[in-house]
Amino acid sequence: QPSGLLLTPRRAFSNNKILVELDKSSGVATMKFKSPPVNSLSLDFLNEFCTSLEKLEKDRACRGVIFTSAVPKIFSSGLDITEMCGKSTEHYGQFWRAVQEMWLRVYGSSMATVAAINGSSPAGGCLVALCCDYRIMVENPKFSIGLNEAQLGIVAPFWFKDTFVNVVGHRVAERSLQLGSLHPAPEAHRIGLVDELVPEEKLQEKALAVMAQWLALPDHARQLTKSMMRKAVLDRLGAQREEDTQNFISFISKEPIQKSLHMYMEMLKKKK
Amino acid sequence: QPSGLLLTPRRAFSNNKILVELDKSSGVATMKFKSPPVNSLSLDFLNEFCTSLEKLEKDRACRGVIFTSAVPKIFSSGLDITEMCGKSTEHYGQFWRAVQEMWLRVYGSSMATVAAINGSSPAGGCLVALCCDYRIMVENPKFSIGLNEAQLGIVAPFWFKDTFVNVVGHRVAERSLQLGSLHPAPEAHRIGLVDELVPEEKLQEKALAVMAQWLALPDHARQLTKSMMRKAVLDRLGAQREEDTQNFISFISKEPIQKSLHMYMEMLKKKK
Amino acid sequence: QPSGLLLTPRRAFSNNKILVELDKSSGVATMKFKSPPVNSLSLDFLNEFCTSLEKLEKDRACRGVIFTSAVPKIFSSGLDITEMCGKSTEHYGQFWRAVQEMWLRVYGSSMATVAAINGSSPAGGCLVALCCDYRIMVENPKFSIGLNEAQLGIVAPFWFKDTFVNVVGHRVAERSLQLGSLHPAPEAHRIGLVDELVPEEKLQEKALAVMAQWLALPDHARQLTKSMMRKAVLDRLGAQREEDTQNFISFISKEPIQKSLHMYMEMLKKKK
Repeated sequence: QPSGLLLTPRRAFSNNKILVELDKSSGVATMKFKSPPVNSLSLDFLNEFCTSLEKLEKDRACRGVIFTSAVPKIFSSGLDITEMCGKSTEHYGQFWRAVQEMWLRVYGSSMATVAAINGSSPAGGCLVALCCDYRIMVENPKFSIGLNEAQLGIVAPFWFKDTFVNVVGHRVAERSLQLGSLHPAPEAHRIGLVDELVPEEKLQEKALAVMAQWLALPDHARQLTKSMMRKAVLDRLGAQREEDTQNFISFISKEPIQKSLHMYMEMLKKKK
Repeated sequence: QPSGLLLTPRRAFSNNKILVELDKSSGVATMKFKSPPVNSLSLDFLNEFCTSLEKLEKDRACRGVIFTSAVPKIFSSGLDITEMCGKSTEHYGQFWRAVQEMWLRVYGSSMATVAAINGSSPAGGCLVALCCDYRIMVENPKFSIGLNEAQLGIVAPFWFKDTFVNVVGHRVAERSLQLGSLHPAPEAHRIGLVDELVPEEKLQEKALAVMAQWLALPDHARQLTKSMMRKAVLDRLGAQREEDTQNFISFISKEPIQKSLHMYMEMLKKKK
Repeated sequence: QPSGLLLTPRRAFSNNKILVELDKSSGVATMKFKSPPVNSLSLDFLNEFCTSLEKLEKDRACRGVIFTSAVPKIFSSGLDITEMCGKSTEHYGQFWRAVQEMWLRVYGSSMATVAAINGSSPAGGCLVALCCDYRIMVENPKFSIGLNEAQLGIVAPFWFKDTFVNVVGHRVAERSLQLGSLHPAPEAHRIGLVDELVPEEKLQEKALAVMAQWLALPDHARQLTKSMMRKAVLDRLGAQREEDTQNFISFISKEPIQKSLHMYMEMLKKKK
């Protein structure tokens, strides 16, 4: 276990939704999501996430990041639906650019990245995990993961899809996306969506062991290799970021989409 | 089991090669190939197929189609070789456009599509199955499936290949296409060419259960997701349809190709 | 077993680093690497390799080639590091063009190609195997194979990567390349990097049996199919060969890269 030097985060980028710990001796940081009840990716969360990650990216003492959750049973519930419901087009645009920013930063990170998935991880939560170099999930079959957007009547954007295809291949992605599947941990492992399952009490230890394996390589070679593998997909959004934002705004503003998101939110409220 | 409302097909598009049943309560149609002895994809068959599918596509009561065979032991034997042998270039062109049309319509269908493969399915028969959203095959190891064109001395066009790669991945496709492999059902399942094997008596029940699963999703989200996954491959033929037709005509008209198709037809005749 | 007609190689292209045997009755040639101690791909080896392969390619009696090693425990150790260390930029350019030539010739060969991997096969050695139509490896877990360039602080070029992705898929390639993994034979089989494992004494027999299977197809159809599968990746290097060469020269000439290659060579010397 790392000695766990707790960063005193600068006020500017922290509102306590994410706890960042950097072990300078190993060069490994942990970003712990602690935004109860479900670590939803709100605009505030995304902004804090990007600022924290950028800081680590620039910190020479940091070579790898582990993403995990401080909230029991949930890794992240994905994009915050309240940000997409009944808001102005300006707000939708601002929110979407923050989602893009998160994806560009994690998928394109020059650090080694490991997702230590200690709870369910639907939609945008799954995306964060997909962007990492390696995914370890708690073997509890009650925890599930997947890009289930279609279940909500919405469509994952092409860069969610590209990231997913790069991990599980075209066929598995096509079926899973069309059905909006949430895969229980054992199934997620079987289809290659996560690389490894471990008991909950072994998760942190395993994540550090995997990270050590990735950091055993020379940074320069590892980074160039990673960039070579992901460049085409990263460039694709890079080249049409504003167009993608306009598409999102236009899609999410549609009456039937707003209606089905509202219904979904009502359903979630009743569940509580 | 669906109540099975038998459509009274308009004379214009039915000559009884395909039996279309639509269960309006579930929104599920079944297209049963009944063109003995082997459901070969003749020009007439293809025209009827496209007209029937187009009619279903426009029918608001229809949300999904199951493709299956009314001929024992064979799903479809693929493109009718007699259409490619000793005919005029005009005929070859007409035939090839019909093959393209079938592919464009099934692979690009906005309906959910399930192949209930109750017999062998070589070449073009395999293609029909590959275009579906899900493939269920009778577990009989005597039934085989594959793009075996190379065995006949011909080459599957790029869009057959693209569809195949999207299902089984590049490596499996490369090997299978070069060897012109016909995979027995268990092997087809192992390599991901079919999604599931069932006993023959369970096939229809299973196909309906799978279809219900796909239709549980909102049509709009499912359709947009499907289109996102398939657009690149669909557009590729769309952009060069006429060029592809001319390539086919020029290839199939070659003396050695005609000769090897003739030999293959003679061999088939002797088998009978 | 082939009667093994030993070619009397023309002086111009043989310096005995590769033994070429052609069995005219079966149309199958064997290229045996015999450049002790580790069959490293030196400029001389590559030139002889390309000349030998070109000769077979033009020989109508030859329809398939089996690549294997005459050196115990090693298939090929990959690119000769001495060619990349402390030499002139002219030399680097000449060497890299020879590496490209080898890849273009094997990956684009119109003959059927089988790798009979009877020893370890890191980096460039793995690339030779990846270029073949089929890979059989001795089941000894002490033999390993992989594109481990990152371990040496260097980066596999994009066409190594493209070839790898075409065999094992994007996800496996991304992880393996970033970690610079050398996969023991059983693991290499599990991830699809080799198609089959056999006991060492069965290797030649198996390679001939597999080759017979590939040669059972009409050459013309098999060749066009292979070309269709590989054209995009082959054309990509074809279109930027000189640019890729300049990239290599610039990268390999860098001080830190030269330093890490030097250290690696010293380490290898001490091992002896």
